[in-house]
Amino acid sequence: MTDGDFGLLTPVSASPAVAALTGDRAVIAAILDVEASWAAVLEDAGLVPAGSAAVVAEAADAGSYDVAAIAERAQGGGNPVIPLLGGLRAKVKDLDPEGIAGKAVHTSLTSQDVLDSALMVLASRTVSALLVDVKRTTTALAALVEQHAETLCVGRSLTQHALPYTFGLKAAQWFQGVAAAGARVESLKLPVQFGGAGGTLASATKLTLGSDSTPFTLADALASKLGLASAAAPWHTNRLAVTALGDSLTALIDSFGKIAADLLFLSRPEVGELGEPQAAGRGVSSAMPQKQNPVLSVLIRSAALQAPGLASQLHLAAATFNDERPDGAWHSEWPALRQLFALALGAAGHLRELTEGLRVFPEAMRRNLEIPGPLLLSEGVAAAVAPLLGEGGKQKLQAVVDEALKAPAAEQSRIYTKLLREAVPADKLTDAELEALLDPAGYLGEAAEISRRILAAYPDFTGSSSKGATRG
Amino acid sequence: MTDGDFGLLTPVSASPAVAALTGDRAVIAAILDVEASWAAVLEDAGLVPAGSAAVVAEAADAGSYDVAAIAERAQGGGNPVIPLLGGLRAKVKDLDPEGIAGKAVHTSLTSQDVLDSALMVLASRTVSALLVDVKRTTTALAALVEQHAETLCVGRSLTQHALPYTFGLKAAQWFQGVAAAGARVESLKLPVQFGGAGGTLASATKLTLGSDSTPFTLADALASKLGLASAAAPWHTNRLAVTALGDSLTALIDSFGKIAADLLFLSRPEVGELGEPQAAGRGVSSAMPQKQNPVLSVLIRSAALQAPGLASQLHLAAATFNDERPDGAWHSEWPALRQLFALALGAAGHLRELTEGLRVFPEAMRRNLEIPGPLLLSEGVAAAVAPLLGEGGKQKLQAVVDEALKAPAAEQSRIYTKLLREAVPADKLTDAELEALLDPAGYLGEAAEISRRILAAYPDFTGSSSKGATRG
Amino acid sequence: MTDGDFGLLTPVSASPAVAALTGDRAVIAAILDVEASWAAVLEDAGLVPAGSAAVVAEAADAGSYDVAAIAERAQGGGNPVIPLLGGLRAKVKDLDPEGIAGKAVHTSLTSQDVLDSALMVLASRTVSALLVDVKRTTTALAALVEQHAETLCVGRSLTQHALPYTFGLKAAQWFQGVAAAGARVESLKLPVQFGGAGGTLASATKLTLGSDSTPFTLADALASKLGLASAAAPWHTNRLAVTALGDSLTALIDSFGKIAADLLFLSRPEVGELGEPQAAGRGVSSAMPQKQNPVLSVLIRSAALQAPGLASQLHLAAATFNDERPDGAWHSEWPALRQLFALALGAAGHLRELTEGLRVFPEAMRRNLEIPGPLLLSEGVAAAVAPLLGEGGKQKLQAVVDEALKAPAAEQSRIYTKLLREAVPADKLTDAELEALLDPAGYLGEAAEISRRILAAYPDFTGSSSKGATRG
Amino acid sequence: MTDGDFGLLTPVSASPAVAALTGDRAVIAAILDVEASWAAVLEDAGLVPAGSAAVVAEAADAGSYDVAAIAERAQGGGNPVIPLLGGLRAKVKDLDPEGIAGKAVHTSLTSQDVLDSALMVLASRTVSALLVDVKRTTTALAALVEQHAETLCVGRSLTQHALPYTFGLKAAQWFQGVAAAGARVESLKLPVQFGGAGGTLASATKLTLGSDSTPFTLADALASKLGLASAAAPWHTNRLAVTALGDSLTALIDSFGKIAADLLFLSRPEVGELGEPQAAGRGVSSAMPQKQNPVLSVLIRSAALQAPGLASQLHLAAATFNDERPDGAWHSEWPALRQLFALALGAAGHLRELTEGLRVFPEAMRRNLEIPGPLLLSEGVAAAVAPLLGEGGKQKLQAVVDEALKAPAAEQSRIYTKLLREAVPADKLTDAELEALLDPAGYLGEAAEISRRILAAYPDFTGSSSKGATRG
Repeated sequence: MTDGDFGLLTPVSASPAVAALTGDRAVIAAILDVEASWAAVLEDAGLVPAGSAAVVAEAADAGSYDVAAIAERAQGGGNPVIPLLGGLRAKVKDLDPEGIAGKAVHTSLTSQDVLDSALMVLASRTVSALLVDVKRTTTALAALVEQHAETLCVGRSLTQHALPYTFGLKAAQWFQGVAAAGARVESLKLPVQFGGAGGTLASATKLTLGSDSTPFTLADALASKLGLASAAAPWHTNRLAVTALGDSLTALIDSFGKIAADLLFLSRPEVGELGEPQAAGRGVSSAMPQKQNPVLSVLIRSAALQAPGLASQLHLAAATFNDERPDGAWHSEWPALRQLFALALGAAGHLRELTEGLRVFPEAMRRNLEIPGPLLLSEGVAAAVAPLLGEGGKQKLQAVVDEALKAPAAEQSRIYTKLLREAVPADKLTDAELEALLDPAGYLGEAAEISRRILAAYPDFTGSSSKGATRG
Repeated sequence: MTDGDFGLLTPVSASPAVAALTGDRAVIAAILDVEASWAAVLEDAGLVPAGSAAVVAEAADAGSYDVAAIAERAQGGGNPVIPLLGGLRAKVKDLDPEGIAGKAVHTSLTSQDVLDSALMVLASRTVSALLVDVKRTTTALAALVEQHAETLCVGRSLTQHALPYTFGLKAAQWFQGVAAAGARVESLKLPVQFGGAGGTLASATKLTLGSDSTPFTLADALASKLGLASAAAPWHTNRLAVTALGDSLTALIDSFGKIAADLLFLSRPEVGELGEPQAAGRGVSSAMPQKQNPVLSVLIRSAALQAPGLASQLHLAAATFNDERPDGAWHSEWPALRQLFALALGAAGHLRELTEGLRVFPEAMRRNLEIPGPLLLSEGVAAAVAPLLGEGGKQKLQAVVDEALKAPAAEQSRIYTKLLREAVPADKLTDAELEALLDPAGYLGEAAEISRRILAAYPDFTGSSSKGATRG
Repeated sequence: MTDGDFGLLTPVSASPAVAALTGDRAVIAAILDVEASWAAVLEDAGLVPAGSAAVVAEAADAGSYDVAAIAERAQGGGNPVIPLLGGLRAKVKDLDPEGIAGKAVHTSLTSQDVLDSALMVLASRTVSALLVDVKRTTTALAALVEQHAETLCVGRSLTQHALPYTFGLKAAQWFQGVAAAGARVESLKLPVQFGGAGGTLASATKLTLGSDSTPFTLADALASKLGLASAAAPWHTNRLAVTALGDSLTALIDSFGKIAADLLFLSRPEVGELGEPQAAGRGVSSAMPQKQNPVLSVLIRSAALQAPGLASQLHLAAATFNDERPDGAWHSEWPALRQLFALALGAAGHLRELTEGLRVFPEAMRRNLEIPGPLLLSEGVAAAVAPLLGEGGKQKLQAVVDEALKAPAAEQSRIYTKLLREAVPADKLTDAELEALLDPAGYLGEAAEISRRILAAYPDFTGSSSKGATRG
Repeated sequence: MTDGDFGLLTPVSASPAVAALTGDRAVIAAILDVEASWAAVLEDAGLVPAGSAAVVAEAADAGSYDVAAIAERAQGGGNPVIPLLGGLRAKVKDLDPEGIAGKAVHTSLTSQDVLDSALMVLASRTVSALLVDVKRTTTALAALVEQHAETLCVGRSLTQHALPYTFGLKAAQWFQGVAAAGARVESLKLPVQFGGAGGTLASATKLTLGSDSTPFTLADALASKLGLASAAAPWHTNRLAVTALGDSLTALIDSFGKIAADLLFLSRPEVGELGEPQAAGRGVSSAMPQKQNPVLSVLIRSAALQAPGLASQLHLAAATFNDERPDGAWHSEWPALRQLFALALGAAGHLRELTEGLRVFPEAMRRNLEIPGPLLLSEGVAAAVAPLLGEGGKQKLQAVVDEALKAPAAEQSRIYTKLLREAVPADKLTDAELEALLDPAGYLGEAAEISRRILAAYPDFTGSSSKGATRG
């Protein structure tokens, strides 16, 4: 049975685009890239015969390997590099029967050098693709910030109506979450790994003896070829590069999850403030013809619920990474890391689609704002009116609120306004002044300025750098 | 690109046998089994035309579906049942153009009924296969218990030498761990799910109106056909069946992890008490010709480090399972559950191989026992000798120990014995008595009886039920 | 500074009642109970002088120990038993200067025997208190099931309106969750631990030599005195008793979390179907006078978000429990276990209060049911009407739904009904029949029967065993 | 019962020093610091009467509050700020009966502003204290690097002997782990929180109307007084500051855990390469007089096993942080964050003590290096000798290794050397050359240079900045 898995049970990331970046074949390609780049580094340094690298590169064609067979044989040595190397060496031998190019294969490397570097290559490709979707998302959010700077809605705290808010500020806070986490992902240093079998570079030291190279110059050259960062030293046993990567991806997915949590509430039929973009066949039910499920948000949320555990898995590995190469911890990193790549990519794609096509219903926002009515302003009323009432003013106003809350929900607004009016002498607060106090649009504080500051803090994420230029 | 994944980065479970039980194709097969069984239930109840079930069964041939395409389309509705149903209905229509059998497909079911039941079917098949390996493992351990009932070794606590021990008792404790957890897995009730779209069985109620059936009799019939347990009621939103399954599998993997942790230490070159079975090509290194890595233990440990997080993922889903079907929590169960199946199966296979071929080196055990020498008996000496010394006897003996521990390691035994001899008058303790006190074989307590009790507590796991009978 | 912590940052469990069961003082009391019970066991067996146990019992007065000092000194040996024993021995010596009773203190025990047993004693007391609140909760839920058997509401799936439902069935599903998990907690076996220093019972074997006792009879006697279950053998290194305890408590908290998740949505201002019981000073805000936060649900949810990680912590310990006593894993169990006790107790108390005083608003349920209106019945309509339309009936009805969904929300019901009426000839479906089809009360399926079956499955949790008897 | 907890079950952090930084009293002090600093900010800005801040500061004496009572009352509003404010206001009123200073208390703040800022203050104090221990640790490690630059030992991979190594390089890798993670902790930005009730700064906008201040200048002033970083905008719902803090602390604890894992192995009796510093009463057993447990490492490891789950808890909160303030997620952050502080501080203290007093046994390292003997050099031998043997040289040398490995362990070295000598003609490799090849000191690669590069990468952590200057 040579069937593979395609993410049937992880719909958030079950797409060919994600698979192309993170699937088994992509891992094999990254491993082969490391080996081929290494051969080139050795040849450039004059340490292997000219022409070797081209042979290795030709043999390192990921498409020509049997993924299933390599995966199964990975059990023997405990990692996929060993069986893959077997295949690579055989192909090199076929291409170059005299065995000259063979010396360029894996010389002075150890499995961990190759796999750690390959996973960093995978990370690098994942991060590049991810940032495209992230920036399209933040661009879409930035546009919502501007469009809805004055769209009133209600701010909610512990599920209850708290204060007047704008949808623009809500979008700005979403933007802040994604942009801050995205910037952190963008700033990641993804280092090459090179230490040789035991982490002493012993074999490479022998290899470079008498040449112009040192193991460190070779490592730098490899990093450069692979698009990775240089490393001051081998980091076989110090996994900060791995945990920082996992933490950053998880923080990014956290920011997606926050938006999905809001969307899932705000698009409920009882609330109706937002709607996912519609697409044929999406959100259908197997049983209920009328249903239109917010599938994008559901999938994003499913990723957000999974990422924290995966980040934790990477830390656990780091915290138990014994000896010069550990006895299981390293192996537990791989699936966690790869799953984080896939979840991040999958969720980012759905979030991009969601934010680019988000349907916004300002009337529903206004309708929900009217549920608490003037009671929503009671903080501001207390601050403005209590001083007018002298000693005990605050208590009197709380009593007004408490009395109003005893009424049936539909009556509370009216009663609150009435009692408030009665509590404050008209010579201290005119009807017009009271009305102004009870207008939610008058109690938005710095909503607009906060939004502006947030966008300004992440100029690379607003999609408007050029626009900004023309405006200036 | 239609490449699938084969577990390249999860070597512990990267085997065709595991894939056959838990891969995407196996999931599709289980979903189709649920649909086909349901058609048969409906036909048996006279609710759909005779012959329908056979058509559905023919169409429900898992091998004929395109896994990759279904996985990708699962994103639309958020679950794989919906696209698979599309395929199933098309095939049924092809086989039965008049559309009679079509009525037997998915009637009165909802996606969650199908997927929950299918995952329970997958669980059931996984558990059966798992228990075969588990019982072979416990049988091998039970044999070690008997063979090594008198094989002396040292018991270790917080890494230090604590007391004389036997390897038989160590094997018995390993046995206890695996058998207790295995018995719990064996006792799992894996329930069918049936509640209809909203969990009220509304559609099925209409369907069975006027027939001899009720929705509950249909559910029981479905359970019976699938080899699952009946359920008193739909459990769409109460995930105890799922968390209990996850917890049990994790507890089983915990017991594997405990053994692997011991093995990884006891097979180190400095210790040498145990060795993994050797096999060609296993445990090799990509760089170091002399290395023989304990790969079975390493892979088992990698599973043991991952399972706890997966169990936790299932609880998190259960704890946030809102509404009558939740908005992401359910989706987060699937990959966790499937990964637990795969880890358990993979690790169980390796552990079986490990225990069946375990190499035991009693001389090394004896050698390590001699490191602490008579000092290892100081608890027993204190208990036996302190009363002979009258007031402050315990303190005097602690002083003897402390004095001995000041000497270089190689001298400690000799000095301890000498000081001890000097501390106790010969008329109260003869040389022979002292020698007996310092013999580790004389301070094994109930090692043998504890071992016997452990084996007796799990008769189904010793592999000796028949032997037991003939012995009697 | 001798200040202690009182749960300032864990408000869900910050109560004197929880502290009395799980605080440091309670741990000390449980440890002392184990030591005092052990002295009594030894005296009963004639292994220590008569009168010893009474002295130990007098010295074992938890109130007389300095918690802070013991906690700090626990760092020396790595566990609290060692410094506490120092104190106990000193007190025994004070009470019995001749030192006879001293022999009854900790003889043949090891720290792990004492601490494992003490934590099981703590667990046993926690579980007893917990089940009181759990059963009051399920009793309250069972009453809601009966009161609201016919209270119509909407069933929700993936946040969207799915089908007609009853609030009675919702309460029944909550009941099922709590009762099933509660029954599992109730059935826990909490075993005594006794194995001696290395797990061989070596010291106890010497101690009982020539007496009528064996180490096993002593262990059983200790279990009996402490109200714990007997253990077939020491389980120092097999932590199934610990993980099963953690898993069960977590599953119980999961069931609380599910209810809290529902409450937090259903009590939102936009929804208004339920309300937490009100109490003076509860749910207030530091800034907003009008706010009434659903604090009970918020606190329960905060516990539900924390428990899964703690269960996982226990499994991780079990999975890495090396040697005959491990090098850190055991220590990582204690805080996780204790925190689970506290979270379960705290959350259970809040949930009891919540369910006993739950405010139910059937009119709001009805109002929300009218949002989708007849569209909510489209599954049932499709099943009933499609056959009347012949070939392609299902497609025609889906087209009616799709057309209706294109209209503004407020118009969808009317348009759906109109189009539906037009789609089906009146001779096949009369107006009265159509009206019946579109009545949500007519599409409740087995809501009542499912509720009944759920209550019947957990008779001990309905609070009506006596009522049941008189009814019969 | 007004007993508090003192960490009885968390010995790693049960110290008065840790409690002083992270205990309930410390939290109260930090909350009061925020309130008092805010009063000072308001007074500085002329927004409250002169003299108010002094009154609030006097009332904000943490020692005068009843921790237990506040903790219990925190359940009412769901957070500790609310009851504490009640106390603070009462004290302010006592000190200033005319109520003028009262206006300076909590004006325009919300609970989350106060608690988020207070926890950042706690974090800031924790980080300062932590870095002292971290830098003493890295200084001690840096000294070991230099002292043991030529101390030969064996490098281990997957538990097996891999290559010659130096203890200096091992210490350098430990140094790298701690210094890299420590530098990340040191670079943390801990931002002030200020957004007001709903995150719009509405109340502060009204307050500052007509003054020279804006809400943003007030926020900056508060940050400055508290020693926190400014924030561009409120971050109520974007928890990157919290998760980044948790991730960094966890990464630091990971680096401690890696060292503890190595220590726990290397100090085992069978290995004996390292020993913990000894101290009276530390590492004792309650039962076994001769035991000396490596308690520092055990406690550090217990922290390392717990931290990953806590980091994950913070991400989970971030990923489910709904609305403008969430319904449980925020509450689940507090205990996780505080426990991370305590674990980090406790473990750092133990690690400092451990590294400053580490006992190193070079003879044991040498003895263990001799276990594999020349076989340890087989990678280097293969590289050097295979080319001398022509075609198939590598295979021939692998055959030599395989043959040697078939012998009993004690014979393998001798046989390997003999077979190797036989396999290579003496004219191609003299005896002296062979001996050189088999000398572990000759196959250390760049051990010294890697060590040097690591120390050079973290100059602030070597403790030698001044020394460095005088050397230059």
